Amino acid sequence: MTKIAIAGSGAMGSRFGYMLQAAGNSVVLLDNWAAHVQAINTNGLTVNIAGQAPLQVQIPAALPTDIKEIQDVIILFTKSMQLTNMLQTIQPLIGPKTKVVCLLNGLGHPETIERYLPKTNIFVGITLWTAGLTGPGEITLSGSGSVELQNVAPDSQNAAKALVELLSAAGLKAHYSTDVLFSIWRKACVNGTLNSLCALLDCNIAQLGQTSQATTLLTAIVDEFSAVAATEGVDLQPAEMLAHIMPLFNPEEAGDHYPSMHQDLIQHHRPTEIDYLNGYVARKGTERGIATPVNQLITELVHTKEALLIEK
Amino acid sequence: MTKIAIAGSGAMGSRFGYMLQAAGNSVVLLDNWAAHVQAINTNGLTVNIAGQAPLQVQIPAALPTDIKEIQDVIILFTKSMQLTNMLQTIQPLIGPKTKVVCLLNGLGHPETIERYLPKTNIFVGITLWTAGLTGPGEITLSGSGSVELQNVAPDSQNAAKALVELLSAAGLKAHYSTDVLFSIWRKACVNGTLNSLCALLDCNIAQLGQTSQATTLLTAIVDEFSAVAATEGVDLQPAEMLAHIMPLFNPEEAGDHYPSMHQDLIQHHRPTEIDYLNGYVARKGTERGIATPVNQLITELVHTKEALLIEK
Repeated sequence: MTKIAIAGSGAMGSRFGYMLQAAGNSVVLLDNWAAHVQAINTNGLTVNIAGQAPLQVQIPAALPTDIKEIQDVIILFTKSMQLTNMLQTIQPLIGPKTKVVCLLNGLGHPETIERYLPKTNIFVGITLWTAGLTGPGEITLSGSGSVELQNVAPDSQNAAKALVELLSAAGLKAHYSTDVLFSIWRKACVNGTLNSLCALLDCNIAQLGQTSQATTLLTAIVDEFSAVAATEGVDLQPAEMLAHIMPLFNPEEAGDHYPSMHQDLIQHHRPTEIDYLNGYVARKGTERGIATPVNQLITELVHTKEALLIEK
Repeated sequence: MTKIAIAGSGAMGSRFGYMLQAAGNSVVLLDNWAAHVQAINTNGLTVNIAGQAPLQVQIPAALPTDIKEIQDVIILFTKSMQLTNMLQTIQPLIGPKTKVVCLLNGLGHPETIERYLPKTNIFVGITLWTAGLTGPGEITLSGSGSVELQNVAPDSQNAAKALVELLSAAGLKAHYSTDVLFSIWRKACVNGTLNSLCALLDCNIAQLGQTSQATTLLTAIVDEFSAVAATEGVDLQPAEMLAHIMPLFNPEEAGDHYPSMHQDLIQHHRPTEIDYLNGYVARKGTERGIATPVNQLITELVHTKEALLIEK
């Protein structure tokens, strides 16, 4: 029985924890939102799946500070800006054999994680699963998804494949990637265009796509992502990237969806992940002598909007 | 008796027209808003001055297409994007001796006007007067102001000074400027920072000033204004410009004011003057080989916001 801690059990973390426990693993959901942890421990995790009666799933939950037992696997699912704090808090859970899997959106996370454990035990990836947190202790699931995963250290390939097995056995449709950094950059570039612009301009994806400026804006952002990606050995072709993003403007695709950064900033007045998307590109571009004025300005404007909307 | 047409009789045009007629000139207010023209011709121009009973001022008003008589002086007071259309419409009013005065906000207007009459008859300036259009045929006046004016053609200095006299005799506190292009750029730079950012970020000036990003944003915009101004022989020092703008964040100054671009875009869902502020800097910068990515992006973002908010 694999002992798995979900470090950051919002919507996505709870989904993964629920599915991994259902597959027979020993799972604990860790989260800093006390009311959420308490609701799960009192009533179970409420899982709403379209067309089914809500499930009440008994699954242990805890504040990250309240668990000290070494885990086999830890899956990181915090918001980007909470990652460092979470890693500091869960030090007691990380033993010499503990595998840590990072499925966060955004750029630069492996660098952060490497400060807390050896590369051989770090695995990074992306997921296309979705989930909604409906209230404390309650998630709503719909649609299907997948996971792409790779080892950070070259000699940890077998361990990565074992993790892929673990996730797939729980129905999470994981597969081993030979170029996960490309996938991470590609997803970050989607988020760094659609999420950032929809948040800044207060619109949904279809509305953005209907403006005559959309292509110009996307091109300016993507060109800089591509230039900085190249400095990390990632071949993010602007034309291919645009061809990948443009269809998402179709209202029958994700079009009428307000991206998560819009939800965070405009709807809930919460800090955004901008520093791990456009902000990362601007920061690394500056460090490496690549002009990134567009991503720099978008990052500043989103931070200004945070300053205006988030109550002190 | 000097025959004066106000070409564009919104709040500011009506103020100037009212004051010039009161000083004994023969004034006609031209405007494309039919209800406004009709209200003035039916009830007079209603002039609200703080602490006084409203005045009903009999003053002729007309659609620009309805007047054909050559004028001594035409004062342009349209929105920037209506200037070309107005100049085309009022061709019959412009004789060989007609002096045309441009007091519009924004950059690049002399270039436009030169396509319609000889330089010797063109005079440009700025004004610090304010006025509000409260409804059709109704303006509200408060505070004091001034006008700075200069000839475009070197040999028209005396004509400019005569116009200064004309305005000052009507209480408009005009003075002759020896470097009006500097003043125009300086005012455009204030508008291109405060107006554009407050419109884009949906905040007032004091709120913008309270964010920790304000200085960074202003500096990025002002640096490019300065570089492009230099190509026109205008010495707009970034440090001096910032020192001029920063005090405006003080809530006791203009701080709690929503600038006109915010009113246009966010409150009334109307097109903005961005192409004559940041957009001019981006366009001329590109033509002249000066990098202006910040003003380019701000222009694109404001146009995107227009596309999102203005009903087709």
